[in-house]
Order: sequence, then C-alpha cells, then structure tokens
Amino acid sequence: MTNPVPLAEIWRADLLESLHLGHAVVCDAAGDIVQAWGDPEALIYPRSSCKMIQALPLVSSGAARARGLSSEQLALACASHNGAAIHTDRVNAWLADLGLGDDDLRCGPQMPDDRDARYGLIRADAAPCQCHNNCSGKHCGFLTLSQHLGAGPEYVEIDHPVQQAVRTAFEEVTGLTSPGYGIDGCSAPNFQTTLHGLARAMSWFASAAARSDAQSVAGAALVDAMRAHPDLVAGEGRACTELMRAMEGRVAVKTGAEGVFVAILPEQKLGIALKIADGATRASEAAITAILVGLGVLEADHPAAIKRMAPPLLNRRNIAVGQIRAAAGLRGAF
Amino acid sequence: MTNPVPLAEIWRADLLESLHLGHAVVCDAAGDIVQAWGDPEALIYPRSSCKMIQALPLVSSGAARARGLSSEQLALACASHNGAAIHTDRVNAWLADLGLGDDDLRCGPQMPDDRDARYGLIRADAAPCQCHNNCSGKHCGFLTLSQHLGAGPEYVEIDHPVQQAVRTAFEEVTGLTSPGYGIDGCSAPNFQTTLHGLARAMSWFASAAARSDAQSVAGAALVDAMRAHPDLVAGEGRACTELMRAMEGRVAVKTGAEGVFVAILPEQKLGIALKIADGATRASEAAITAILVGLGVLEADHPAAIKRMAPPLLNRRNIAVGQIRAAAGLRGAF
Repeated sequence: MTNPVPLAEIWRADLLESLHLGHAVVCDAAGDIVQAWGDPEALIYPRSSCKMIQALPLVSSGAARARGLSSEQLALACASHNGAAIHTDRVNAWLADLGLGDDDLRCGPQMPDDRDARYGLIRADAAPCQCHNNCSGKHCGFLTLSQHLGAGPEYVEIDHPVQQAVRTAFEEVTGLTSPGYGIDGCSAPNFQTTLHGLARAMSWFASAAARSDAQSVAGAALVDAMRAHPDLVAGEGRACTELMRAMEGRVAVKTGAEGVFVAILPEQKLGIALKIADGATRASEAAITAILVGLGVLEADHPAAIKRMAPPLLNRRNIAVGQIRAAAGLRGAF
Repeated sequence: MTNPVPLAEIWRADLLESLHLGHAVVCDAAGDIVQAWGDPEALIYPRSSCKMIQALPLVSSGAARARGLSSEQLALACASHNGAAIHTDRVNAWLADLGLGDDDLRCGPQMPDDRDARYGLIRADAAPCQCHNNCSGKHCGFLTLSQHLGAGPEYVEIDHPVQQAVRTAFEEVTGLTSPGYGIDGCSAPNFQTTLHGLARAMSWFASAAARSDAQSVAGAALVDAMRAHPDLVAGEGRACTELMRAMEGRVAVKTGAEGVFVAILPEQKLGIALKIADGATRASEAAITAILVGLGVLEADHPAAIKRMAPPLLNRRNIAVGQIRAAAGLRGAF
C-alpha cells in the first residue's frame, strides 16, 4: 500500500495553510496504468462519479430505446445536477412520460444548489421535492429500467433487478469483483472498487465507440450525451459543466462526493480517476483540472482551468488573501 | 518535523471512505506539553480560534471598562456567530453606542448561517450587511479599542494601533514571535504561530484568574464571558455553543476556519489546540470533542458529544449510511 500524496495546496500569504492528499490514476484503452499518484489499489466508493456506469443497463437493456429517451435524458441520467428549472422541468416531464410522479422517486428531497430555484422555494415557503435532488435524473433512469424489466417499485434495494444489473455492469467495466457496497446519499447502492478499477472503467468508456457490443454502444451513447449537454450534467457555475464547456465536448468529466473525480477522453482513449483522501471537493476539482491540463486537453490559461486549478481565495470584501494550487507534479507530468 | 496523524475517520458501511489527519496539543499552566498528537511545532493560522486573544487589548487597555461593555459584548467580541437576531441586534446596538453604523465595519457582508435570518433576507430580497458577518462582534471590539486609542477608521490595517496591540498580546500569550501573518476572511490580520504556541495561549487563559496583571485580568474576563454566553459565541446548532452548554460553563471552546479548534479548561488549568491538516471542520469538531471526553470534562454519552464525536451520517431520506468517528487514540489517551 502506498500512502496518498499531495494533490492540492491551500495557501494564505506565505504559509501553506492546508494540504490535501490523494490518489490518482490514468488508464489507457487496455486498462493499463499510464500514470499514477499515490496508491492505484486504494479501495474507494466512486459515489456520483460512476453515474454513467449506473446508467449503462438503462441503455444496453433496450429500455432507453423502447421509451424513446433523448440525449438530454441520458445526460440527466449521468448528472449530479443543481436542481435548476432546466433540470427539474425535464425530470418532471420524464416522470410524467412514465406515468409516475415525484413520490415514485426514492432519492429523497434536497434543497437545490441553484440559487434561483432555492430562493424560489424559500420565498414560496415550500419544501424541496425529490425532483430537486441532484440524483433525480439517475433515479428516472432507474425507474425507466425497472418498468422495462417489469420489476417492483423499490428500485434502490440491493436485490432489485435494477441494482443487480448495475452491479453486473460495474464489475464488467471496472474489471474487478466489487468487494462490497455502501448506501449513497440518494439511497442507491454504491459499489466499492479501486482507483485503478474506476480509471479502467473510464478508459472503457473512452474506447467504447470503437466496439460494437451492446454495452459498449450504450457506453458511447452516454459519453456523447454528457459531452453534448454539459449544462444538464451539473449546472451553471459548477466544475463539471464549466470544464466540459472549456474542452468543447472533447472530454466528459464527472464529480463524486467525498473528493472523487473522473474523466473520459475519447480522442486519447484514456480514463482518469482520482480520490482526495480527506474527501474535499475543492481539492478534487483542482487535481482533475491539473491532470487534464497536463494531458493537453485543457488550456492552462482558460478561465475555467484557472478557476479550479489556481483560483485566488477571496475574502468577504473580495480581497485576494491566498490561493488554491493543484500540486505541481500533476501539471508537469506529461 | 512529525507528520500529521489520523484524528477523524469517515466510514460508509464497512469501508473507511475518507480520513482526516492533523496535529493536537494539550498544555498545562506552565505552557508545557502534557500530550500531543502529530507535530506540536507545526506552523498554523489560528483563524477565528484566537478571537479571545484579539479581544485582549480591548479589555486590558481599559477601553471595555471606559465604554461600559457588558459580559455579553465581550462574548460577542470572541464570537464566530450565526448572524441570528440575538447577535445582529446586539452588534447594531453596540455600533449605535459608538456613534457608528454598519458602514464603519471592515469585515464585509456575509449571508448569515442562521436559517431564520437567512430566509428573512431572501424573502425581503435584501442583501446581507456587515453586521451579519460572523466576525462582526470582534470588529465592534476593534472599533471600540480604536476610538479609545483615538486612532483612525482603517482598523484592520497591519500598522493600525489596534492590530499592533493585537500582535503584542498574541506574542505575549503564545510565548512566540509570530513569523508572519495572513489576511483573514474578515480582512483582519491573522498571525501565524505553532500548535504549541496556540495551546500555550489557551493554558494562559485557563490560568489567568490566578494572576493579577492587567492582561491576565482581561483574559479571565473574556473566558468568563464566553462560558456565560455560549449562545452568543456561535449560535443554535453550532458545535461551540452545544459543547459549552454540555460542559455547563466549565470549559470555553472556540472553532477556527480550516480545521482549527481550541479549548480553555480553567478548573484543570489546561489549554488545547488542534488543526486538521486538510482544513475540515467536521474533523476538528470530532477531534476536540474526543479530547474533551478523554480529559473527563465532557460525558462521552452526552448528546452534544455523540453529535460531534460519533454521529451517524444520514442520507437524504434520513437513513444512517455511515459514521464520523474521532480517532480512537484521542479518547483513550487519558
């Protein structure tokens, strides 16, 4: 076992105030490690970074085609969204198409991150619904697959056909038997794998378009959907949306809770997975950005890159008092 | 230099999902280390954990007495408050007493953490004021001292007599020359010291009541004010308030940004300082709670202790999916 290594630094004046350690892996199309920091065999929960894996059975089963799902809906199935109107309107329409409603979701309610949506609820003295949950698109995908399979309504239970199909797909694309699972914030099972396994899965997606089996065709469609709709995968101001826009559709990226981030690079047929050991999102965003810059798919001086990789820390009077810095070794590595 | 050591763990099902490392020191009245984890000589910014030090010149100069400040006002001077009405009403009254207004503050505006205050602003379509800033009580203290000294309005500048008095007090009670400073979220200088220096300062406060010099008398008054008004030092639902209430006024505790926490134990004449290396508050709260339990000043089964030291992680449907756990070595150490 290798210890985690510094991936992001928090500077205030001349002192390193805080430091984030972690693990990161870049895999090629064969699933072999091209570059690694820390321990590729570290066992993690991918959390929301694996939503494109959780959406694979929806597409490869034929459920998506049978229901006529659009590219926008596939992007939402892979999303951790802000709960903005562009997300919840589409989720509610999807539920209506299925003959279902908010109560059929099992993700739980969540106050939306989107400011307009949040302020709207507060001003109306209204509680958030399950459609506002950042995972509601994924859950619409689960419901669609469940209907297609003729399965029951408790689609987040580990023994439900939907989650069993997710596990099968997860183990196929990670190339590893998952040693266990936990329950995610949205109540769905989240399967454990290694950083290497998660990066291998991302390289599987990156090379999917070159293969013709049903699972690979599904994977390529999901990657295309994410790249075509960066606003649906996260939302305004969010790292996933801004980084995908900055890379003009060449790369799909996805964040996960507790400091996980992944990237899928179809042109290079590379997959990336990283985990900040302490779970900090500010560090996972800085680190994935630096690795993408290092791989040459994101300009170091693009505003979206600077915002995540080397942003000034502004205080409450907008005075720059420090800086977040991705570890130098991440950028210079390639 | 000693590496930081595990202080708090984040578990999900059977997997350690995230881990927080850090440094912690317990000092006796002589300023000697009683117990330490990690590196006592690690250089840190105390951030808001040193507000009782920043308030020392306000009291020891005679400014507080000349202005007739109450114990409540001294507690607010040491506070990182929620911006609730109980805080902002007192801050605004204090400013009026000084013949000043919100514009004379230099802390910047901040949306209050207090839900009622925040929702009230949103429903009124109103922007937060500087009085809502969690540091506004400290800044009222700075303004009071500045008036007493006949100094100018830019009281957060490093060369201003207020900040020079703070630096002198800071170096006196930490027992160290500060090697530098950074600018805090509220625009005030924040002086660097070691974990040992900060713990020594807290033991200086813990033993202040036994001494009769002006600085010590000031220190004892500030500790008494914090212990008497736990609701003013933070707010409902916050760790500082709940832990001080649970210890029934026997101990003063104070959080600081980027994973700092301190405690002052007058009965034991002990001081504690800790820093989570990655800056996480969930970990600093767990660790300080465990150390207080280990020292016998907080019951391990008190709801306020369980809430911080071993709380279940609840998901969006209130299902327990994991747990935060203070490192076992923190509790068992005494």
